[in-house]
Amino acid sequence: MRVGVLGGGQLARMLALEGVPLGHSFTILEPGTDPPAAALGSVVAAAYDDPDGLRRVAEASDVVTYEFENVPARSAAYLASRLPALPPPVALEVAQDRLAEKTMFRELGIATPEFHPIDGPGDIEPAIAATGLPAVIKTRTLGYDGKGQAVVRTTEEAAAAAERLGAEPVANGSGRYGAVYGLIAEAFVHFERELSVLAVAGRDGSRAFYPLTENHHREGILRTSYAPAPRLNGALQAAGERLAGLVLDRLGYVGVLAIELFEAEGRLLANEIAPRVHNSGHWTLDGASTSQFENHIRAVTGMPLAPPRVAGPSAMVNLIGEVPDVNALAAIPGAHIHLYHKTPRPGRKLGHVNVTGDCEEAVMETVERVWALLPGAGELTRATAW
Amino acid sequence: MRVGVLGGGQLARMLALEGVPLGHSFTILEPGTDPPAAALGSVVAAAYDDPDGLRRVAEASDVVTYEFENVPARSAAYLASRLPALPPPVALEVAQDRLAEKTMFRELGIATPEFHPIDGPGDIEPAIAATGLPAVIKTRTLGYDGKGQAVVRTTEEAAAAAERLGAEPVANGSGRYGAVYGLIAEAFVHFERELSVLAVAGRDGSRAFYPLTENHHREGILRTSYAPAPRLNGALQAAGERLAGLVLDRLGYVGVLAIELFEAEGRLLANEIAPRVHNSGHWTLDGASTSQFENHIRAVTGMPLAPPRVAGPSAMVNLIGEVPDVNALAAIPGAHIHLYHKTPRPGRKLGHVNVTGDCEEAVMETVERVWALLPGAGELTRATAW
Repeated sequence: MRVGVLGGGQLARMLALEGVPLGHSFTILEPGTDPPAAALGSVVAAAYDDPDGLRRVAEASDVVTYEFENVPARSAAYLASRLPALPPPVALEVAQDRLAEKTMFRELGIATPEFHPIDGPGDIEPAIAATGLPAVIKTRTLGYDGKGQAVVRTTEEAAAAAERLGAEPVANGSGRYGAVYGLIAEAFVHFERELSVLAVAGRDGSRAFYPLTENHHREGILRTSYAPAPRLNGALQAAGERLAGLVLDRLGYVGVLAIELFEAEGRLLANEIAPRVHNSGHWTLDGASTSQFENHIRAVTGMPLAPPRVAGPSAMVNLIGEVPDVNALAAIPGAHIHLYHKTPRPGRKLGHVNVTGDCEEAVMETVERVWALLPGAGELTRATAW
Repeated sequence: MRVGVLGGGQLARMLALEGVPLGHSFTILEPGTDPPAAALGSVVAAAYDDPDGLRRVAEASDVVTYEFENVPARSAAYLASRLPALPPPVALEVAQDRLAEKTMFRELGIATPEFHPIDGPGDIEPAIAATGLPAVIKTRTLGYDGKGQAVVRTTEEAAAAAERLGAEPVANGSGRYGAVYGLIAEAFVHFERELSVLAVAGRDGSRAFYPLTENHHREGILRTSYAPAPRLNGALQAAGERLAGLVLDRLGYVGVLAIELFEAEGRLLANEIAPRVHNSGHWTLDGASTSQFENHIRAVTGMPLAPPRVAGPSAMVNLIGEVPDVNALAAIPGAHIHLYHKTPRPGRKLGHVNVTGDCEEAVMETVERVWALLPGAGELTRATAW
């Protein structure tokens, strides 16, 4: 099948690497030059809202999908009017707006940090009353990797942060929400750890789930994942699958969906969704019988899903800002290298290393060996129980 | 690193699929149109002996390798004079000539079926005296998938077969060996099973080996592989690694080398070498921690090898002549699909399905489910002890 992908970054690259053996071919819409996915398909070089570019992708594809959630709503609507566009555009809409996302969780009965919209200065007090302090003020749209948010400890700090963040064009979207600020306040959660659940839904309504993953961020950027999450038991896995299933149902979802979770006082709180393959699922390339990328492609092309078998523990280490000596990485037994063909830049994800091994201790030791090669990576945050 | 590959078939396709995540890029020399590897690199469309094509590949590459052994000797020599050409051309020379191959085995003290050259009619009697009857008369060059050979049961049949096969241009190579016929007679071995050993040698002299694989052919074409080979024990594996090691030494080898073996009366007899990734190693894409394709690319690019971990049993089923319903294949748990983007034609390898599972019985059952979908595949030859 001919698959169109909006975005030509590392996610598109890995989708194509996993989709080509299934017999599919790929057309990539990407405004940048020499994108990571370029070696693996035809590239349509155009902006994501360029009508001619969108038309060319539609004509070259039997189905279209996305490697990121911030596809312009009109582009998604146009594509969906021409051919199957999966996941469905409604999933993009929800994922693009933190308020819509949190509201969906609440309506579905999924626990989430307390939240309140901040549309203007008058909302500061009710918002803080709802969330308590400290709180996190965030732009409703386009925040990623810790950008577009601030932790506040007093109502005054909240007001100042709202004024600053609300002035950013990405926040108010030129009055997109009929609001001055276009912000959301969220309770600051003292969580024990961050987890994610990776679900996949087929066109035929079938479902598959990967084991919950434990994720460690620094400066808002994912650094390491450990899977299956340490101390994962049947009840925790079932809780993750249950809430993911509710979201899949609500959105009429097809494809891979990631939901970031906080584990706090024995409860799972949903933080946000990613309607796409997700960095916290990169370990599945080496740690599961079928990767998230292959299952996403299976899903959107209408193939049966492959319920993943996970035989042992694995981990993922992101390569951020700089790629260490590749041969030194390659010399580490159990380290699997995935480079993205990207120009180094501080804070940029340039690749990742998956680690597999016979037991959790062996995986953790290998992660330490990989980490030791990363220039300026700071201290490794270890899995909570390995 | 920029890797050139002579040949753009499925082996080049899988080399590129496994090499791209390591950060490498690929240039393919291929005379045919729209070859399997085309989606994964730049294609130089030219014959394997075209000087301009070879020059363009050399200029576009830091190292060059091959997906088949019948690279013209002059092409290999030209490339090796310009850049690292690995495996070394001597390996191609030996693999191109059954007599040189068998002679090498004998010189290395590696057991092999009895053999004798047949350069002309006068060699029939001494050849049959050496091999006994029945015997197999083969062209020294270019035979594959059972082509260019005949089983003979009498001296008269041998003479007739030699006359017929010796008249083929591929056999006498226009007097390539200063011979009329350019044939070899080999003893017909009543083997218990066919095995193969897959070895890989790094540029730094390091070595790694995959578990021996049991292979089942029909009409000269590989149909199924089972790995690790049923009843594989330490002694058998060591015997396979020992003989492969001798060949690696002799050839100053770098890359993946496959040796096809007969197991007969508790002994291993070497049949032939393939100086490249090999169909009997395709299971490693899903059944080993690192595939033969990745290790070949690691080897020729000078990266450290990744000694493969093999956690459980797996199998490989070739898709010959026709691709069955892909969604039916994809619905089989534990079946991993690898299609080659080739036009169907009788006897042509169009893809393969790897099978993984928790135990040998489960793998064998899944192989049966895959096999049942193959149109006109005939009877499945099961693993000897699963």
